[in-house]
Amino acid sequence: MKEINYKITIAYDGTLYNGWQIQPNGISIQQKIQEALSIVLRHPTLITGSGRTDTGVHALGQVAHFKSPNEIEARRFLHSLNCILPIDIRIKTVEVVPEHFHARYSAKQKTYHYFLHTNPVLDPFQRLYAWHFFGEIHINNLLEAATYLVGTHDFSAFANESHTGAAAYNPIRHMKRLDIIPIEEGFRLEFEADGFLYKMVRNITGTLLEVASGRRSPASIPKIISSKDRKKAGKTAPPQGLFLVKVDY
Amino acid sequence: MKEINYKITIAYDGTLYNGWQIQPNGISIQQKIQEALSIVLRHPTLITGSGRTDTGVHALGQVAHFKSPNEIEARRFLHSLNCILPIDIRIKTVEVVPEHFHARYSAKQKTYHYFLHTNPVLDPFQRLYAWHFFGEIHINNLLEAATYLVGTHDFSAFANESHTGAAAYNPIRHMKRLDIIPIEEGFRLEFEADGFLYKMVRNITGTLLEVASGRRSPASIPKIISSKDRKKAGKTAPPQGLFLVKVDY
Repeated sequence: MKEINYKITIAYDGTLYNGWQIQPNGISIQQKIQEALSIVLRHPTLITGSGRTDTGVHALGQVAHFKSPNEIEARRFLHSLNCILPIDIRIKTVEVVPEHFHARYSAKQKTYHYFLHTNPVLDPFQRLYAWHFFGEIHINNLLEAATYLVGTHDFSAFANESHTGAAAYNPIRHMKRLDIIPIEEGFRLEFEADGFLYKMVRNITGTLLEVASGRRSPASIPKIISSKDRKKAGKTAPPQGLFLVKVDY
Repeated sequence: MKEINYKITIAYDGTLYNGWQIQPNGISIQQKIQEALSIVLRHPTLITGSGRTDTGVHALGQVAHFKSPNEIEARRFLHSLNCILPIDIRIKTVEVVPEHFHARYSAKQKTYHYFLHTNPVLDPFQRLYAWHFFGEIHINNLLEAATYLVGTHDFSAFANESHTGAAAYNPIRHMKRLDIIPIEEGFRLEFEADGFLYKMVRNITGTLLEVASGRRSPASIPKIISSKDRKKAGKTAPPQGLFLVKVDY
């Protein structure tokens, strides 16, 4: 039977899930989508995401692909799927893609946003969607530090152990853009790269905030990069400020 | 002992609470704040809010007053209080007010916002903070209908039973402003009045959306108002789209 390759884009609030990836303990977003797809398509369905997101991390435009012999009418399909899915996971689009399309391997670029909330008193509506960062922010230091991270680097110093054991592991990434955007109650950090290592955005954010608060100098960033040593970089920023915004192919 | 009168402004996410007002079944926002205040001030403390909000309704600027013989240093006081309170309730300001200040009776004007989300697929981050309204919206009808509600009216047709039995019950209110603001994924309805009857904003919103979707004509609004009959108006809009934005004194 001829299988059709489908691409879906997904928005989810990661608060209540144990991350994207299926795992024995806890409920994952991937599992909820596979269960719903299997009901709507009437056959067991596996999906492959563009990459995993951790517990508490959110997505506005996660991408996954799956194969099915069924022809899908987008409007009805999205309606059925979103009726079955929990309300904090929404399938935004579905489209037919070429047979060789792979959500992970075909990805050319990803965009993540990290939200910092810097009000003295936390806005309660931000508690699950931003890092509430106390204390003074030296904005010029933050901006300078960010510039050192743009370009092609070995980002090992900002990667937590995970795939690092794999033979084909390649820690070199091209950071196309790292912008610090002032917003109403803090800052949005915008990251655009051809790919990200495990926990790289949160490790960079944690380190940048140590610069912003004066505990490190901006000039320490190039030294951290060249050390390739995770222990030289700062703490991992908390997950709830992080959003996978889009994946480009 | 001389009692000092204090005014606090409060932001809360109403999702997990049984509304503002203390009640035997379920946990209220008022109760959580009274408990925290009683710990920080070291004496049992009662607060009076500007009015109640229902289960699931949010506040950006609820106001309450309480009396205490203690002198309060604002920064330390807010820090202690917000450490004890659950993270979805935040005290934003505290200030000394004249003895005769009363959060409810001194209020001159209130502002409510109601958020409508009209994307075909719900943004999962809006699920607790907007009404996801399906179907077409006839914006001109909606705008016309809103104009009939501005001004001084007997709003009985839009009030649920509650205080209506009280002898001094006065259903006349002055609606200073009812604006329909287009926003990224829908509309924000802004209500400004010298006061609101029980469930008035949600009943008006539910009725306006019946006009917007073509089930009622804009011209039916003046007839509903003059009927003073709750049964003539539309359904109550769901609570999660409603925010008490500010109270003016």
